[in-house]
Amino acid sequence: MKALVYQGPGKKAVLDRPLPEIKAATDAIVKITKTTICGTDLHILKGDVPTCSPGRILGHEGVGIIESTGSGVMSFRPGDRVLISCISACGRCDYCRKGMYSHCATGGWILGNEIDGTQAEYVRIPHADTSLYRLPEGIAEDALVMLSDILPTGFECGVLNGKVEPGSTIAIVGAGPIGLATLLTAQFYTPAEIIMIDLDQNRLDIAKQFGATRIVNSAKEKPVDAVMAMTGGRGVDAAIEAVGVPASFELCEDLVAPGGTIANIGVHGLKVDLHLEKLWSSNITITTRLVDTVTTPMLLKTVASKKIDPTQLITHRFSLGQILEAYETFAHAADTHALKMLIEA
Amino acid sequence: MKALVYQGPGKKAVLDRPLPEIKAATDAIVKITKTTICGTDLHILKGDVPTCSPGRILGHEGVGIIESTGSGVMSFRPGDRVLISCISACGRCDYCRKGMYSHCATGGWILGNEIDGTQAEYVRIPHADTSLYRLPEGIAEDALVMLSDILPTGFECGVLNGKVEPGSTIAIVGAGPIGLATLLTAQFYTPAEIIMIDLDQNRLDIAKQFGATRIVNSAKEKPVDAVMAMTGGRGVDAAIEAVGVPASFELCEDLVAPGGTIANIGVHGLKVDLHLEKLWSSNITITTRLVDTVTTPMLLKTVASKKIDPTQLITHRFSLGQILEAYETFAHAADTHALKMLIEA
Amino acid sequence: MKALVYQGPGKKAVLDRPLPEIKAATDAIVKITKTTICGTDLHILKGDVPTCSPGRILGHEGVGIIESTGSGVMSFRPGDRVLISCISACGRCDYCRKGMYSHCATGGWILGNEIDGTQAEYVRIPHADTSLYRLPEGIAEDALVMLSDILPTGFECGVLNGKVEPGSTIAIVGAGPIGLATLLTAQFYTPAEIIMIDLDQNRLDIAKQFGATRIVNSAKEKPVDAVMAMTGGRGVDAAIEAVGVPASFELCEDLVAPGGTIANIGVHGLKVDLHLEKLWSSNITITTRLVDTVTTPMLLKTVASKKIDPTQLITHRFSLGQILEAYETFAHAADTHALKMLIEA
Amino acid sequence: MKALVYQGPGKKAVLDRPLPEIKAATDAIVKITKTTICGTDLHILKGDVPTCSPGRILGHEGVGIIESTGSGVMSFRPGDRVLISCISACGRCDYCRKGMYSHCATGGWILGNEIDGTQAEYVRIPHADTSLYRLPEGIAEDALVMLSDILPTGFECGVLNGKVEPGSTIAIVGAGPIGLATLLTAQFYTPAEIIMIDLDQNRLDIAKQFGATRIVNSAKEKPVDAVMAMTGGRGVDAAIEAVGVPASFELCEDLVAPGGTIANIGVHGLKVDLHLEKLWSSNITITTRLVDTVTTPMLLKTVASKKIDPTQLITHRFSLGQILEAYETFAHAADTHALKMLIEA
Repeated sequence: MKALVYQGPGKKAVLDRPLPEIKAATDAIVKITKTTICGTDLHILKGDVPTCSPGRILGHEGVGIIESTGSGVMSFRPGDRVLISCISACGRCDYCRKGMYSHCATGGWILGNEIDGTQAEYVRIPHADTSLYRLPEGIAEDALVMLSDILPTGFECGVLNGKVEPGSTIAIVGAGPIGLATLLTAQFYTPAEIIMIDLDQNRLDIAKQFGATRIVNSAKEKPVDAVMAMTGGRGVDAAIEAVGVPASFELCEDLVAPGGTIANIGVHGLKVDLHLEKLWSSNITITTRLVDTVTTPMLLKTVASKKIDPTQLITHRFSLGQILEAYETFAHAADTHALKMLIEA
Repeated sequence: MKALVYQGPGKKAVLDRPLPEIKAATDAIVKITKTTICGTDLHILKGDVPTCSPGRILGHEGVGIIESTGSGVMSFRPGDRVLISCISACGRCDYCRKGMYSHCATGGWILGNEIDGTQAEYVRIPHADTSLYRLPEGIAEDALVMLSDILPTGFECGVLNGKVEPGSTIAIVGAGPIGLATLLTAQFYTPAEIIMIDLDQNRLDIAKQFGATRIVNSAKEKPVDAVMAMTGGRGVDAAIEAVGVPASFELCEDLVAPGGTIANIGVHGLKVDLHLEKLWSSNITITTRLVDTVTTPMLLKTVASKKIDPTQLITHRFSLGQILEAYETFAHAADTHALKMLIEA
Repeated sequence: MKALVYQGPGKKAVLDRPLPEIKAATDAIVKITKTTICGTDLHILKGDVPTCSPGRILGHEGVGIIESTGSGVMSFRPGDRVLISCISACGRCDYCRKGMYSHCATGGWILGNEIDGTQAEYVRIPHADTSLYRLPEGIAEDALVMLSDILPTGFECGVLNGKVEPGSTIAIVGAGPIGLATLLTAQFYTPAEIIMIDLDQNRLDIAKQFGATRIVNSAKEKPVDAVMAMTGGRGVDAAIEAVGVPASFELCEDLVAPGGTIANIGVHGLKVDLHLEKLWSSNITITTRLVDTVTTPMLLKTVASKKIDPTQLITHRFSLGQILEAYETFAHAADTHALKMLIEA
Repeated sequence: MKALVYQGPGKKAVLDRPLPEIKAATDAIVKITKTTICGTDLHILKGDVPTCSPGRILGHEGVGIIESTGSGVMSFRPGDRVLISCISACGRCDYCRKGMYSHCATGGWILGNEIDGTQAEYVRIPHADTSLYRLPEGIAEDALVMLSDILPTGFECGVLNGKVEPGSTIAIVGAGPIGLATLLTAQFYTPAEIIMIDLDQNRLDIAKQFGATRIVNSAKEKPVDAVMAMTGGRGVDAAIEAVGVPASFELCEDLVAPGGTIANIGVHGLKVDLHLEKLWSSNITITTRLVDTVTTPMLLKTVASKKIDPTQLITHRFSLGQILEAYETFAHAADTHALKMLIEA
């Protein structure tokens, strides 16, 4: 089968690979119909993710059709249309029982990382019963590809951890795909103000269309000054970090009001300065989280009832054969205005 | 009246000062019967607290008897025995309504800091209705002096923020008075293991008597190794920082298990390194808090019902006339084995 | 001044009454600009509220302008435009400190009940600092009259107690003003389905306009059957009772899914049958609540940011001189299609 | 093998039955070492549980040793010592994912009810991975038999649902085994007062030994009067129903303070009167729950760390051959002072 294979830092190729096979009773093989590319895939390609070895098929998002199942799979049969979660969860270990699937003893984020992923014609999904979701009738598959990773990540790590609530004022630092997914799902809780902060005016304009009430272009104005002016000097109830560099996290430290929350979503490669000499008495909360995808059932209901339209995040479409072109487009988002690439297998 | 007066960095004296007077309708004058000294008083004396000017009477803890009340005070009358909260709260501003008394628009920690405090024969208490508590019958005053600051601080900033729960494993870094107050109140929630970490063997021995299930002398062994050995390599559910220096906070970063909490109590003068490159995916929570004293009614009930004996924290007793000696004893705790000084006015 | 006075069961009149005066240091006198009529006022007129004696000026809702304040009022001055909360709260007693203003030791629902109310030119408001709210700039007064009682009641007793959340399915039994206020504020949390149940098709049609996703006319179909058909036989996550009779509460018992909540808003005059022989193993929660108005600051933000338009609830307008006519219109809602009456003083 | 078999209302016998066999890939066969008898077993024997057919082996509690496992069982191997949960949980269905194992689509309380149970030499356990727990080293098996049902039931349905917290005042209505298990686990949260109410002085005396701070013999005094006298007329923060008849639930309605909780544990066969005409404005919460056993891992830690000694509940010991005698003893608890019977297989 055709697959996008990581070949070491800076190298990738579309190669012909053998079909995946059931290895454990709880596995399923899924024929991919649609997949996409994540910012994390670019991190892997830079060589930043040591758990991912050359030879790995990338991709941890997608929808498809069950091809076959192991003897221990109880919930799915060949032919079932399914959403693939980016997190594999056994449902049995201590972490899974606490709803912390991201830290599953034999799962977590392994797909397209420690085991072969979804940017291929077929994929093996371990712990299928608790890592796949049946597609509701009458929902476009395109929308559901956004539920593999980006929507639950924005929602769980940003919105839920940020305790967004009716009437609150929040700032989202970073208007890339994950910041925009946070913006979309934050509106489930009706905050009064959503301030979007980025350097890229195009993304800020999109944020405005997606529901941001205020935008701050940090290339043009000082974001702390701008946000303090907007909030009467008080700061924001939740400052959500959606970039992953020290400067953006430290900006959140300056934006958060006493009693507020800094919810980190970004993947960080460096330590940051935490100004406890200022914050020790501010009664703030800081959270980190790798998405658990425990809200997938809830998010499916919001999509099924048309409370949110995740297809807004899709800017470009390709076939699996064009996936190298899709990677190019996605990697040059500033020029291409790319958000999410939809790839049909 | 006699009072302990801050006279600028490194200087203090017992001086004769005029009696305090009612300034606002919501004030009360309290005749102090018992007070104590806080680590923060030592910070002020080092010149580390810029909001506290020379000439200030120190002290933000104590019990006493209402001497007089302003026309707007509804809950107290002269002769009432009261507990003085270290936090003054108007009960009306946005922060007070949220239970965040520490950030009261016209209160917060002002006593013995921005206004004259309790290390004197009399003190003026603003917002008396919401900053004083009637003493329950039949409870020793000595115990209640510990409820002005140290018990609610350990309980709110450490135990509640640390989400201590039955069966959990916690580590408290720092076995000084505030760490020990945290240890005492943590037991309200029946954790399975309470690991106390300090450099001072005397304090660790006291911690053992106070209910610590394990102690780690970080002068003798590496605390990370010791805690990981105790927890099967998993780390702790809550790592509670009760010192206030970067090393102890950064130790907490190494101790906390995925899904756990770092609850900061310490007063920090320097920034710390937050290792987000390691913690971004650990699903942890970090909290900071200046005590709100919102749990004072709850704590009064636990003392009244003898679920906790705060007098265990009292190691030395002095009269107000001996307060300079009390400061000496408290400042040299390593030698004197001082925890809390009880000072009778 | 002109005032609507209760004169015993079935009797009311517009009378000339002396201006109210400050009685306690914490009182304020407010000149009413706008008020409205509540279903509870009709209960009083039927003689169903024993705490309300003949001679009482009715009304517990309204906005106005501060005329004068007692010496202990700190937050308001003459000329300030204010929202009057239906609940008077001292902010100091045990219940107020827990955010349970409804049970304030010296307040609660006393306005237009145990003390004279707002259906007059002037009113005395006790505990003014914690019972009045400054009006945000640029918001129509009409909208804010709805924040005295009806919106916080629907929101606190129905939506918050019902734990409405994104993607959930709720049923509201009763599409009168309070049910509709619940419907409006439930949408803050983006439920997937809001099923509105009533006997009055006009009110159901309004519910549809206000955002109900499904309506059930219980005069035409069996509501249990209808809701079970809509939910695949599962029932609803929250069944919200907004009528106040045994049949509607018992309907909620039949509608609630395992793990769900019955949130009672209705004022009940009779006991109900609780079918514990069926529900003991259903893991449900039942809540009751007299509105605390603790969410008034949050609701003010949602109105100021135009997330909700409470003026939709206003169907008729009158002057204070026409208040008897307003009562007639309100009392015959089935014919007049009345929801809320706006009365200008 | 030897087994206690239900033979229709009023009839039971020890019979020889074939050994159970693996039916599904996720099953395990467990050799029982210890089991016990539950009040629910007596209900079945009265004919009150229609889901339990004649011919059924009773019992849903016990510890044992894994004899064999199906191909889909991942966590256990023959020879592992295990605790059997009274609730079978697939870990995959919507209810299991919410932690509501009691309503598992293919599990719940089926053991000794819809499928053969533990009062036998061997038992088949479905969904073994998520329905069995590995025994911690060094804990007496006797203690762990109490973790199959009675401790999690008292803890989840009574203590957690009752939101017991430090300093609170609670009443437990019913001092039978389940009320006493509630009493033991309530102390995890250090309430100030635990008032135990029963008709049987022997059980009240035991309650006193187990940590009740007050006892009320409702055969000798009016419990409402007694509790109101103890609480200054306020009532209790949590009233926990541990009997299962209308009178005891209705007593809870009279005992609960405004803002408090009625947590129902009892198995009810009749409807009760809910006095909403009194309670609609009391801001109370009522909960029902069939135990989910989601707290089993937490409870195992509290037993392993010796925070609780569940063997206090064991009053009599028998061999499996003497199980009819054990039933007799248990059924005549008023005379025999029986709490829990330990039966060794």
